[in-house]
Parts: sequence; structure tokens; C-alpha cells
Amino acid sequence: MEMAAVAAGEAPRRTRGARPQRGGVGAKGLGVPYIIRNIPTYDILSEENLLRIEAIADRILAEVGIEFRDDPAVLDHWKRAGAKLDGLRVTFEPGMLKEIVRSAPRQFTQHARNPARSVEIGGNNVVFSPAYGSPFVTDLDNGRRYGTIEDFRNLIKLAQSSPWLHHSGGTICEPVDVPVNKRHLDMVYSHIKYSDRAFMGSITAEDRAEDSIEMARILFGRDFVDANCVILGNVNVNSPLVWDGTMTKSLRAYARANQAAVIVPFILGGAMGPVTNAGAIAQSYAETLAGCALTQLERKGAPVIFGNFLSSMSLRSGSPTFGTPEPAIGSMVIGQLARRLGLPLRCAGNFSNSKLPDAQAMQEGVMSMLSAVHCGANFILHSAGFVDGLLAMSYEKFVMDTDFCGALHSYLAGVVVDDNTLAMDAFLQVGPGSHFLGCDHTMRNYQTAFWDSGLSDNEPFEKWTEEGGTDMATRANRSWKKTLAEYEAPPLDVAIDDALTDYVTRRKNDMADAWY
Amino acid sequence: MEMAAVAAGEAPRRTRGARPQRGGVGAKGLGVPYIIRNIPTYDILSEENLLRIEAIADRILAEVGIEFRDDPAVLDHWKRAGAKLDGLRVTFEPGMLKEIVRSAPRQFTQHARNPARSVEIGGNNVVFSPAYGSPFVTDLDNGRRYGTIEDFRNLIKLAQSSPWLHHSGGTICEPVDVPVNKRHLDMVYSHIKYSDRAFMGSITAEDRAEDSIEMARILFGRDFVDANCVILGNVNVNSPLVWDGTMTKSLRAYARANQAAVIVPFILGGAMGPVTNAGAIAQSYAETLAGCALTQLERKGAPVIFGNFLSSMSLRSGSPTFGTPEPAIGSMVIGQLARRLGLPLRCAGNFSNSKLPDAQAMQEGVMSMLSAVHCGANFILHSAGFVDGLLAMSYEKFVMDTDFCGALHSYLAGVVVDDNTLAMDAFLQVGPGSHFLGCDHTMRNYQTAFWDSGLSDNEPFEKWTEEGGTDMATRANRSWKKTLAEYEAPPLDVAIDDALTDYVTRRKNDMADAWY
Repeated sequence: MEMAAVAAGEAPRRTRGARPQRGGVGAKGLGVPYIIRNIPTYDILSEENLLRIEAIADRILAEVGIEFRDDPAVLDHWKRAGAKLDGLRVTFEPGMLKEIVRSAPRQFTQHARNPARSVEIGGNNVVFSPAYGSPFVTDLDNGRRYGTIEDFRNLIKLAQSSPWLHHSGGTICEPVDVPVNKRHLDMVYSHIKYSDRAFMGSITAEDRAEDSIEMARILFGRDFVDANCVILGNVNVNSPLVWDGTMTKSLRAYARANQAAVIVPFILGGAMGPVTNAGAIAQSYAETLAGCALTQLERKGAPVIFGNFLSSMSLRSGSPTFGTPEPAIGSMVIGQLARRLGLPLRCAGNFSNSKLPDAQAMQEGVMSMLSAVHCGANFILHSAGFVDGLLAMSYEKFVMDTDFCGALHSYLAGVVVDDNTLAMDAFLQVGPGSHFLGCDHTMRNYQTAFWDSGLSDNEPFEKWTEEGGTDMATRANRSWKKTLAEYEAPPLDVAIDDALTDYVTRRKNDMADAWY
Repeated sequence: MEMAAVAAGEAPRRTRGARPQRGGVGAKGLGVPYIIRNIPTYDILSEENLLRIEAIADRILAEVGIEFRDDPAVLDHWKRAGAKLDGLRVTFEPGMLKEIVRSAPRQFTQHARNPARSVEIGGNNVVFSPAYGSPFVTDLDNGRRYGTIEDFRNLIKLAQSSPWLHHSGGTICEPVDVPVNKRHLDMVYSHIKYSDRAFMGSITAEDRAEDSIEMARILFGRDFVDANCVILGNVNVNSPLVWDGTMTKSLRAYARANQAAVIVPFILGGAMGPVTNAGAIAQSYAETLAGCALTQLERKGAPVIFGNFLSSMSLRSGSPTFGTPEPAIGSMVIGQLARRLGLPLRCAGNFSNSKLPDAQAMQEGVMSMLSAVHCGANFILHSAGFVDGLLAMSYEKFVMDTDFCGALHSYLAGVVVDDNTLAMDAFLQVGPGSHFLGCDHTMRNYQTAFWDSGLSDNEPFEKWTEEGGTDMATRANRSWKKTLAEYEAPPLDVAIDDALTDYVTRRKNDMADAWY
């Protein structure tokens, strides 16, 4: 099947389901496939200090090195590239990795099965993708419990129904009711079936990465996939300074197929890295750079995303903390460094340690999410849903966060300066002591002037009281139930659907269930 | 009484009360009198577009003009300065007002009665001051009701007890149980009595402004006040393009006494100004510039603060909305324009339309507060407490916001790059596959490495559940009660206290009660 068949989703002959519902009222960016930012990035560090951080990263790579475990093919790659090997430990001459990543694209398209929803990753583009990887889900009715495949599907449906996300994500929650070695098949199928946006595949084992890519080939066609990015794989460094074989094998599987790996060290300052930001940033840079270079050694020109995940620690409990100021400000520096490399960036996201969709959840979430958009991140994983550290996906927080993603569409549109927005005609018409409510300029512009949240209460106190005096969490609870009730699946070509179902069934039959 | 007498607060001979309690754990900036920012401002607009906005402001001032009502002395000032008058309408040649404000200081000290708590306003300095002006107060126990003088005192005590605010504010809530013509006496006295930080006086009538300044003279000494800023007055433009006499008389009273007026238009886009950001910014700039110039005509060299308050509107209800993206991004431009004038800046603050200390309150609050610190505001009024538009001060939100102000101390410290923070010694000591928990670098730095919120839950889910499974609002409720129970007034010279009490009593006896 070729791209033409997929594009038929636009005007389908034989399809199951109907078009997705759209929410939101007059605001900037409604229905755009991704954001083109109209404000500059927030660059906080001087050239001199950026050079000092890069120099420390060079020293880490040259004097300490990185260990590559359980994947001899990686060691062969490094040997051929001219790195020094000492057992599993690899050291790199300054400048070597930077040179290797020059073959990676500065920007690339990740295709969605609905071509109108394909996303551009890199440059001035911003793509919001849901949170990824939590074992638990939680909602106000039932509290916290392990995620299931039904939760997984529900969350995909909520993502698909929001006009303010651009991507379907990956492991939106762990479906722990499905055997661990078969989950990826149900997850990838659910993304394709219940969303028409771009998505991510599995990375927890090489064959699961291969299955994910194979299912993308069924959807998009083999030749199309070889020439275009249609699936992402999010691989993690085992910080400090270790790459595990499971991850490098998956990274190489994606690169080999010309698909994009997202390279992400998770550095909890004081545990997996130094307790000070500058050092943690240098380490993150070194670890990510090595992963990005590896994709190019596996397949020159393969797309790759430069990721990072800085975190801090509670001095009282030793727990990781999220949405705190140090990682937020540190992300700005990561952004500057990634742009100097010319690689698309994944940064930060929307995090909180709160167990509830409460004030803490949004205080921490907004701080970290704003840092992601300010630092220039192109692909913002974890844009919606996380609470409880990284442990739980909250149904209520998910819809709160997508609403905030809507606000960010207006924010990133910046301040437009032209004859219309400068409004000299309105000043001449209205004059001192009057009002602009009915003037020509207002009538011409009011419908798209201001972001209008679908979830915030903006009523006078008396009306709010009459209407039940709800908090945002209660309104979010009603919102996700309504959205799920009204959800309709986007059309999917029946032949593709059948081929995917056959593949999943056959692969499941090949394996005994594994539960850990 | 001279400054030496006030400074005796540090080592008092005869005082009532004791030192304030301090909260918080190891973090950057604990106990600093104000923040010296270590990150650049976030400048989003090009030189070309700034010039276009300034040019429209020039046209507004020259072609439309500003009306100055009920204060003939103002018209005399403008006439002498060379502006054109047409009845109450005044128009200005381009560049004229910019030239006049050149005599205002770029930075000045506002003295506190405890000299260790005096604040620098302007330059790279950031001062957090509580919210101002709400008629209602609210808390989780009793809901919303009109503010009283007891609430007023409670909120001053909460502000004084937080190490993360720098200023005592002004009308922290309206004490509606005190006659409207006598409130200012109780308010100014409460600031002096229950706080040892800098504060604001009344502006609702010329004699109330004069009373406020007179009480400051009792506290600091007449000569000291004539030479130094010890009190601020926050005056509002009646947008669009009208200055009311009540405000210009108070503005002139502060300037005449060499005290700082804060000049603030409140522009609700689509009502008091254009519905588009660029035009609203140009208007705000023009209105503020006129007010700032007026202070210089009243007394050349008087300190003044360039303020603004952009707001948006709900398309569905017509209500003002707060913490929305358009004012947040617009503030960045106001910041750029104020720096081109060389005037200290007041911007944005922490706003929400929510009626509760919930997720909405912090989502909107954090967005607007971060815009204030990013845009380079020097004096951030409304740093803590607002909910319900500008209508209510929430006890719980107040302590949540002061906690967030604490986080901003770490955020504004930026990313420090030096040999210690780059941590090369740690990488050499730890190496790949180990951890940094006990290494020398961590031991040397961990105590001040990370902001540690006093209000956020950072416990594992099980421990959080055991401890009651509270949300942030519940913890904030406990926190303010504990703080009030433990509050002790800062020492105040008894002679000063008596003189102030005498003044208040005498002035109250001069007037019949007025209730509106």
C-alpha cells in the first residue's frame, strides 16, 4: 500500500468511523497540525558560558567516556569511526561526535496517516505530544490504579479529540493487563486505529521496535517508510554515561529503517548526575550527542531528535521533584546547545509530583511546560497528563493540560505588529473617555483576539455559585467523560485495518505470554 | 526622628514584639531583601517593531491626546511645558514626554523601617509585593466575604512572615468595616506596625495621600523623607486616555514629597483599549508616559515607576479574563519599551479568575507571574493572593503564591557556570554506571542546589496517602493558620508607635464617618 492509499483517509471509499470532534472556540491556531512559533527562543546564557559547558562535555567524552553494554555492533561502529575502546568503555576525541551528527537533518516531516496532520519536527516548529510511560492511571472517580488497554485507548481518544495536541504519543500509559511482550502490538494498533495523527513505537526490546516499524510499513507502505519518517522511538540513556544494549539495539532499529530516535538521558541531579545545573547539562549534552551520533553510524542521514530530561531532588525525602525552577531554567541552556548542533530538540514537558489535579499539579506543570516552549523545543513529549512524578496519567490533568496547550497556541503567536493590530483607526474613532466595545476595529478583530479556555471559569462569582461552584478538576472530570461519550474514530481503510489486525494476531500467536 | 532612630529597629532599646519567623529550607536567596536577577530579560520584539509601536504612541499623544479632568494645576503644568491645550484635552509633540521623563531616576531605593529590608527598584532588581485592592477575602473555611481590618492585619502578617516577599504592599484587601475616609489611616498604621518592610500609601483622595506621607514622616523623619523614597502610591489611568483629578492630585502629592508614584493604566482589550495587543500596548505606553512626565513637572527628579496592566476578555461572557496568554506575551513588549525609556517597571503579577485555590488559580497565576519576571519588571505588585479576577484575596492562594515566589528566587539565579558547578571533579570521581549521591561535589553543594517547596507534596504515593492524601489547598489552609498562630510583630520604637497612634486618632476625630 502506498501513501495514496493512506491519503484516502481524507475522502475514504470504505472506512470505519467518522471524523473527530473538534472543541475550542475562536482562538489562534485552531486545527493547525503543529505550531510555527512567532516568538524568539529565550536564550539565557552567554557565548562564553556555552563554550565552557561544551568544553566540559568534550572532556567528559574524552577523559571519562561512555560505556556501551550488551551490543557488540555498537562497539564495531565506534571502532570504525575512530573512537578509542577500552573494553566496553568508549572515549571520543573532541569534535568527533559533532562532526558525525552533521549528517542528521535539521528538520524533518513525521508523516501521519491523515496527511493534513503530518508534523514538521525542527526549526521554528513546535509539536505537542501526550505524556509517556506511566504505569498508573488516576481519575477523580476511581483514584489511582494500574493502567489497562482500555485506559490506553481512552487516553488516545482524548488526545485525538483535542485540537491542541499534534501527536498521538507512544506509551500513553502502560497497559498492564496485556502481557509485557505483546503490549507493543496493541499499543501501536490503538494509535493507528483511534487516532489519525503521528505516533511513537516501542523501544523496550529490539523485536518490539521492529514490530512497531513493521506495522508502520503496513500502514504507509514499505517504500514510503524507507524514504520518510512515520514513527518515532524514544530511547533513554542509563545515566551516568552508560548506554544499555536494549536501548542501542532499538535506537539502531529505528535508524536502520530511516525512522527517528528521540535520544533522552534522564538526569536526576545528585543521583544520576551532578547536583549543579551546569555539570548536569554538560553530561546530558555528552550522553545525547553520543546517541545521536550512533544513529548516523547506523544509517547516515537518519532523522534524530536531541532530547533531555533534567530533574531535581527533594532534600527532605530524596524523592525526585518535577516542575521545579532549576530544570526549568536549565532547559533554556539545553535549547541553546541543541541549536548550535543544528538538531531538532525535545525538552522538558509538563510535570508534577502532585497526586491530584490540584493547584500544585498546575503550578509545577505550567512552569515546566513554559520552559519547554521558551527553550525552543520542537517535540514536546509529556505535554499532557502527568501527575505523581512520572508514575500516573490523570484523566483530569490530561484535559487541563490540553486546554493549556491551546493557550500556548495564542502565546506562541506572539505580538503581531501591523497596521491592523496597531489600531490607529480605533484611537481616532474612539478618543478619550469612551470605549472600544463596538468600534470597527473591535468588530473586525474580536473573534480571534483572545484565547478562550474551554475549562477555565470566567463567570462572575454569583453565576459561578449558581452553576454549582465547581473547581477546575470537577469541570475536567465532566469534560473527559463527555469527550469519550462523543468520540468517533477517524476513518481507516478497511484493508489496512485487516492487515494490521492479522499482523497483531500472528505475532501474538508466535509468543508465549510474558508478564515481566 | 531621623533615620538613625528607625535603624534602631535592628538593635532596639524599647520595642514591642520580636523578630519575624522565617520559613523555608535550603534554597537560593533565603532572606534576601530583594532579588538581583541573574538571567536576561525575554525580549520578543525586533527594534523595527518597537519603533512602530512607539510611533503609534506618538501619534496617539499628538493627534488624539489625553483628557485631564478636575485638576487645573495639571493643565498649568502642561501649558508651561509646551503642550497644546484644547479645553481639558492635551496633545503632545512627538518626543516631548520622553524628554521630560529623562529627569526621573533609573533606579532608586525605597527605604524600609528595617534598613536590612530596604529595596532597590530598577535595574536588575526584582521586588515582590502582595496583591492590592480586592474588596473580598476568601478562605476554605468561610468562603468569600467582604474584607475587614482584621483580614487586612492577617494578610500583612502572612506577608511579613514569608521570606519570599520583599514588600508589604498597600491595600492588601479593602477593610470595609472601617469608614471609607478613615481606612487609609488604619491601613498605613497596620503596615508600619505589623511589618518592617517597605509599603504603599493611599491614593483614593489627595488628603489620604497626604496623610499616608505624613505618617511616613513620623516614622522616618521629615528631612529623611524629603530626600529619600519611603512610600509608594499606585495611581491608575482612567483608560482610554483620561486622567482623573483624584489620581493626578494623589500622583502630584507623592511626587511633591519626593515619593514614588506607580503609574498604571488598566486596559481591558476591546473595552478600555483596542482588542489587539500592539495597539493596546501603544496606548498603555502613551498613558503611562504622560503620568510619568507629570511627576517630573511636579518635582523634577522625583522617583516614578512605569506600570501597566494589560487584560483580555471572555468572548462568551464579556468578563475580563486574567492569566491568559495575550497579556502575558504583551508584557514582554512593555518591558522592552520601559527599558528604552530608562524607567523602573511594574508589570503583570499573579492573576486568576478562579474563585478557588485550585488548578485554574495556579495555571493562570503562574503564567502571568512568569511573564512578570521574564519581562524584567522591577516591582511586581500582585505577587500573591489574587483570585476571582481582582475581586478577592484568598488566604490559601496567598501562601501558595509566596511559596512560588520562593521558587522564583532559584529560577532568577539562572545557570551559574564556574569550575564548581561544571563539576568535572565529580565526573572523574564517579565515572560511568555509578551514582553521585555521596560524591564530594554533591556533599559540597547539595544544601543549596535545589529549591525545596514548603507546600508541595513530594512524597511517594503511599506516604502521601498515609499522611491524609491532601491537596495543596488543604496544606495551604493549615500553613496560614500555623503562620498566624506563630506570628510575632517586628520590633517598633515605642515613641514612634505612640506618635503614629496619636496621629491616627487625631485625624479620625477630625472627620465624620463616610461609608461610600
